[in-house]
Amino acid sequence: MSDIKMIEAAAQRARGHVRRTPLLSSPFLDEIAGRRVFVKAECLQHTGSFKFRGAWSALSGMTPEARAAGVLAFSSGNHAQGVALAARLHGVPATIIMPEDAPALKIANTRALGAEVVLYDRAGREKREEIGARLQAERGLTLIRPYDEPLVIAGQGTCGLEIAAQAAELGVTQAEVLTCCGGGGLTAGISLALEAHAPEMRVRPAEPEGFDDTARSLASGGIETNNGPEAGLCDAILTPSPGQITFPIMAARCGPGLVVSDDEVRAAMREAATRLKLVVEPGGAVALAAALYHGDALEGDTVIATASGGNVDASLYAEVLAAA
Amino acid sequence: MSDIKMIEAAAQRARGHVRRTPLLSSPFLDEIAGRRVFVKAECLQHTGSFKFRGAWSALSGMTPEARAAGVLAFSSGNHAQGVALAARLHGVPATIIMPEDAPALKIANTRALGAEVVLYDRAGREKREEIGARLQAERGLTLIRPYDEPLVIAGQGTCGLEIAAQAAELGVTQAEVLTCCGGGGLTAGISLALEAHAPEMRVRPAEPEGFDDTARSLASGGIETNNGPEAGLCDAILTPSPGQITFPIMAARCGPGLVVSDDEVRAAMREAATRLKLVVEPGGAVALAAALYHGDALEGDTVIATASGGNVDASLYAEVLAAA
Repeated sequence: MSDIKMIEAAAQRARGHVRRTPLLSSPFLDEIAGRRVFVKAECLQHTGSFKFRGAWSALSGMTPEARAAGVLAFSSGNHAQGVALAARLHGVPATIIMPEDAPALKIANTRALGAEVVLYDRAGREKREEIGARLQAERGLTLIRPYDEPLVIAGQGTCGLEIAAQAAELGVTQAEVLTCCGGGGLTAGISLALEAHAPEMRVRPAEPEGFDDTARSLASGGIETNNGPEAGLCDAILTPSPGQITFPIMAARCGPGLVVSDDEVRAAMREAATRLKLVVEPGGAVALAAALYHGDALEGDTVIATASGGNVDASLYAEVLAAA
Repeated sequence: MSDIKMIEAAAQRARGHVRRTPLLSSPFLDEIAGRRVFVKAECLQHTGSFKFRGAWSALSGMTPEARAAGVLAFSSGNHAQGVALAARLHGVPATIIMPEDAPALKIANTRALGAEVVLYDRAGREKREEIGARLQAERGLTLIRPYDEPLVIAGQGTCGLEIAAQAAELGVTQAEVLTCCGGGGLTAGISLALEAHAPEMRVRPAEPEGFDDTARSLASGGIETNNGPEAGLCDAILTPSPGQITFPIMAARCGPGLVVSDDEVRAAMREAATRLKLVVEPGGAVALAAALYHGDALEGDTVIATASGGNVDASLYAEVLAAA
């Protein structure tokens, strides 16, 4: 089980390797939101998302023997790149299982970060879990899960330690802290960190419409699942339900979830570019969208939004910006 | 005359007000450049450019009496916004003289930052200098020049102090430091700071083709002037010649200038977005363009490029990104 000691230990291991990303603000965003807005710019993290924190925590927290044998991840997105870079920096092999129809750029990037990419056919006979189990057995690899993994949650929690410290430097101790929420690794990690270091802050997960499994789970008290489409604008955070490990952590600590529309996400991406000079991907903009456009659902005079990633295709990004 | 003591004093006055912007990197940029590349992300500074440093230095370094009477600037761009915000934060009036055909958004932003905007007709009878002289006399305002002003140079120099400290944290003491160069305030300030705190680094100004007045001035040893068009892609840095105060500082300290094409600037803007998640304006991307595409003209295994601003219109930015 993840706890604040694990997060603080992860922060120690992260020193000099994980970026302390800035906490940014703009008077123009304050005006839109009607309160003070701070943005934790995790899109500036190595590999362009907070996922590097969890990957570094997992790699640096393994036994040297297990690490030397190499690591395995399933992902076509931000987790893949985080694991690939963390493995390369540890000098150990990473194997990433990706669908063969993943964007060519993401496959190329993951390879360029030194990982061995194993492609599979989504419609093929062998499921990715079977491929993974075979590779684990053959090579002695350790699987790094994207969120339901205590070391990964602890790594994401280091983002919360920074939020608490950076807010305190600005004299802020009370705030609603909005997270971009998929499986809940970042949300769980930050909520554990703030419980210990900024107990007057409250974490609230933000999700896109149609993928509000965490908001519904927090409301019902049990793990709920999305029944809508599998794909959407906010690709990085479209998990079917919160994790078995992350959900109890969130249920005990987080306030009600917030749900935003795709149009609000696009508008938040434009504001992040215009006002903060940050490239934020759709799934990384849901928290800012909630901060800017759902003020009625927020309490207090200060909101802190994570901008959790910036890995958006140039063509989609240009389209979003041009639509202003 | 600006010197390292003035810069260190400016840094003291800036504490808690000016952002310590991050020094970012990406293995993908290293690969393009064939050496290590670090980017000083001044686009993340308050008001979206390093200009806030100089404006804060000037406002905070004035006598309280002069400051209380208010400040004056001529600018339709980044200097205007920097002065407007620095004045607002000091609680004193700012008057900014802008051409009436300046982009509506920039006029609106400068007003939103609390400045009084006085519009003038470029083709009209009264020149902006005459308007400025009249307002100075009537209101007792202090003019803040954009670069040929010791307090402003000292403020821009605080960026150099941060580069020296951040590079040292990474174990880097030798590097070519490329600046985006207009009138030379940033270049002069950084070169003074590095001379004192990172003497093995060498500053080199970067400019766009057709506006290479500083490169030619450094080569000839005297102040040269551009004779080409007045307007261009890199609007933020299109001054006709280096300053009377900035040039001698640069001439004594900087290496040869670098000149990049507009296409290289656009490509650097795309790489900054894709690899660093930074929105960089054309004039803020010339140093990165030189780092990435003019490696033959560089020495050593490490280059540090300033990304000096991010105030680009959304429509132009979308166009640049879509052209990939």
